[in-house]
Amino acid sequence: MLSIAEASSEAHVGSEVSVRGWVYRIRSSGGVTFIVIRDSTGIVQCTAKKNELTPEQYDEISSLGIESSLSLIGTMKKEPRSPTGYEISIHKFTVYQKNDVFPITKDQGEEFLLDNRHLWLRSREFTSILKVRSTIFRSFADFFYDQGYYQVHTPFMVSTAVEGGSTLFKVDFFGEPIFLNQSAQFYLETMIYSLEKVFTIAPSFRAEKSRTRRHLTEYWHAEAEVAWIDNREMMDVEENMIYYIIQRVIEENYDDLKLLGRDPEALRAMKPPFPRVKYSDIIKVANEIGMQLKYGDDLGADEERQITMRYCKPVFVTNYPKELKPFYMPQDPDNPSEVLNHDLLAPEGYGEIIGGSQRIWDYKELMQRIREAGLDESAYYWYIDLRKYGSVPHSGFGLGMDRLAMWIMHLDNIREAIPYPRTIRRTKP
Amino acid sequence: MLSIAEASSEAHVGSEVSVRGWVYRIRSSGGVTFIVIRDSTGIVQCTAKKNELTPEQYDEISSLGIESSLSLIGTMKKEPRSPTGYEISIHKFTVYQKNDVFPITKDQGEEFLLDNRHLWLRSREFTSILKVRSTIFRSFADFFYDQGYYQVHTPFMVSTAVEGGSTLFKVDFFGEPIFLNQSAQFYLETMIYSLEKVFTIAPSFRAEKSRTRRHLTEYWHAEAEVAWIDNREMMDVEENMIYYIIQRVIEENYDDLKLLGRDPEALRAMKPPFPRVKYSDIIKVANEIGMQLKYGDDLGADEERQITMRYCKPVFVTNYPKELKPFYMPQDPDNPSEVLNHDLLAPEGYGEIIGGSQRIWDYKELMQRIREAGLDESAYYWYIDLRKYGSVPHSGFGLGMDRLAMWIMHLDNIREAIPYPRTIRRTKP
Ligand SMILES: [Mg+2]
Ligand SMILES: [Mg+2]
Repeated sequence: MLSIAEASSEAHVGSEVSVRGWVYRIRSSGGVTFIVIRDSTGIVQCTAKKNELTPEQYDEISSLGIESSLSLIGTMKKEPRSPTGYEISIHKFTVYQKNDVFPITKDQGEEFLLDNRHLWLRSREFTSILKVRSTIFRSFADFFYDQGYYQVHTPFMVSTAVEGGSTLFKVDFFGEPIFLNQSAQFYLETMIYSLEKVFTIAPSFRAEKSRTRRHLTEYWHAEAEVAWIDNREMMDVEENMIYYIIQRVIEENYDDLKLLGRDPEALRAMKPPFPRVKYSDIIKVANEIGMQLKYGDDLGADEERQITMRYCKPVFVTNYPKELKPFYMPQDPDNPSEVLNHDLLAPEGYGEIIGGSQRIWDYKELMQRIREAGLDESAYYWYIDLRKYGSVPHSGFGLGMDRLAMWIMHLDNIREAIPYPRTIRRTKP
Repeated sequence: MLSIAEASSEAHVGSEVSVRGWVYRIRSSGGVTFIVIRDSTGIVQCTAKKNELTPEQYDEISSLGIESSLSLIGTMKKEPRSPTGYEISIHKFTVYQKNDVFPITKDQGEEFLLDNRHLWLRSREFTSILKVRSTIFRSFADFFYDQGYYQVHTPFMVSTAVEGGSTLFKVDFFGEPIFLNQSAQFYLETMIYSLEKVFTIAPSFRAEKSRTRRHLTEYWHAEAEVAWIDNREMMDVEENMIYYIIQRVIEENYDDLKLLGRDPEALRAMKPPFPRVKYSDIIKVANEIGMQLKYGDDLGADEERQITMRYCKPVFVTNYPKELKPFYMPQDPDNPSEVLNHDLLAPEGYGEIIGGSQRIWDYKELMQRIREAGLDESAYYWYIDLRKYGSVPHSGFGLGMDRLAMWIMHLDNIREAIPYPRTIRRTKP
């Protein structure tokens, strides 16, 4: 048995090949049935001829509906009029399952398609999306492994919240309330004392009521923490990581990008260094293009969209006002009202994909910020301990993998970047 | 700046080196302070001499407690009496943080150590455990990527349970109840029609009240589904995968295994093929060694421990009685009271690490089993659809990554195999 991509090559022309898959298109005309078969590697046109099969066989194969499954044996030929330039002339076949009508056709509503996501995933678009996504996950991990990072794992059911309590999902843990984690960061920080450079790729959960095109209630979060490096060095790592992923996707999924309408060359042009712009300068840029933003305003989805439409490369926004960022980000010694942070905004209107910063490593500074934030010190005992015993300077970041995938593939909605999106209105299938 | 492993080499003997890390041991004697420093790569003994430093410097470095953090510059020498054969003679140093007393010392109770897991992880044993774990995760994924599998992602908040409802954690989803997923299997099955060969590595959640040494309420679950293959071929893939992981761990973590007291050569001997024993024969074996088991009894932790003490390789147990296994496993045509399944039991008393099977792909057969099991058909509409539209034969498995790690490292308790174990009695830190 060959994959369709393997079979569709010069080497097999004139030979008998066996392939299997699903009916992608079918039509009959003048005693010949043309069936386009798809598998995970591609499509190929096959022909069944009335005068070469028994009447029962010809009837069986001619009556297959879209997405019927079958295997077949036939002769591979060159055929310039077929969609791929190859064609298989069928001698024998076995039907695994005959469908009459496949539920997904053109012109169906969004809700119907979401209810039938398990079938919709078979489209060529989704197949390409899933392949690109797989490359993105693999290459993220490879980038860090190859630089001596270790992959680690942090808990999901937690009692301490990294980013505050309003967007936490509550779980009934044998009768006690507990929360689903929103970030691995604090736990990753505990592991730099053993391993120095760590990353994790895991789901995070946010009970956000947002219905924007870039929010999910569960999403894949890739996070890293690194001992001994500062905010600038962290940005150096990240821009190289993003470009490494882009290059791998172009190399391994060129045709998938094309099929999705994403120009691989536009991506290839997004080479580091990425611009690094202070928050205060981004506010100026925003006002120059007619937005009404003042210093101290946060950048939401809308603002980021308008701003990043101006950029053709990802852009780091640094030095946010302290009030807009969490307690663990250190103040900039040159301007204590700002913190040593960086958000990475994807260009072309996509907006935030990474949030990162240097982390406060001084015990007194951390305790002051915890008190200012009004947090319960006892819940953070283990996080505070890290600054009491052998604390070292360090930085880290969190990357929204689904957002990265959405931007790399230039998709319209984050729901298209993940097989089974979970939003405030959607938990099935 | 060099890592301790890089600095501790012939090439640097006689040269000035810079290293940094944490105090692992310290003692003073006759005007010399011996400090063993550790970083993520290893340890090295350093000496500070009273007559080569200022009195303030000598006092500062001599008074550092365990786990204090520092960087230092000094001359690398060979020193047969040091723990690694190398020694650095300190010229200059910078203390990042001085500790007086590190909370973790010898002879501390289990609960204290679990409460201070964030500090306990710095031990050399845990550092090695975390490194081996990282290799296991990387090599699992590499094995499948290299065979053309795609990594995919499935949802966590679900309304359909794979293995029944009694051990589900309930989440408050904006006021509605929803459950944490226990297995990606059904969702993986939906993706074989696009990609044919898929895997995922993700947390699974089980509200089991067991307090055995091999259960966690959240654990890392690696699952795969593969179109067109049967139960036997699935076992072939799995035994090769297990052996690939073992080989990578031996190659990349030989010293870690030694430090943990696991003999790498005992692991290396566990070459495929692994024995494949029918459930009915395992019951006979159990009774021969004095256990009181009858056909139809399930194998729990205790039974698997006793049975696998007899094996020095992993063993597949196939052909379970239908009643002991879930509805989606097909009956063996040669014996319809048994199913085409396989559990992989790790030897040396460890027991089940994989559960897998062929999956029912015939629509009528599936519907009959769903009805026999008394399940709500409407909740499974999307799973049933897979047998209505282009169904194909397929098989899959789920592997408990923490259990695999526990067995590979020969650990006593699964809690030692994961940084932050979650059990019925433990949700912090
Ligand atoms: Mg933002
Ligand atoms: Mg069992």
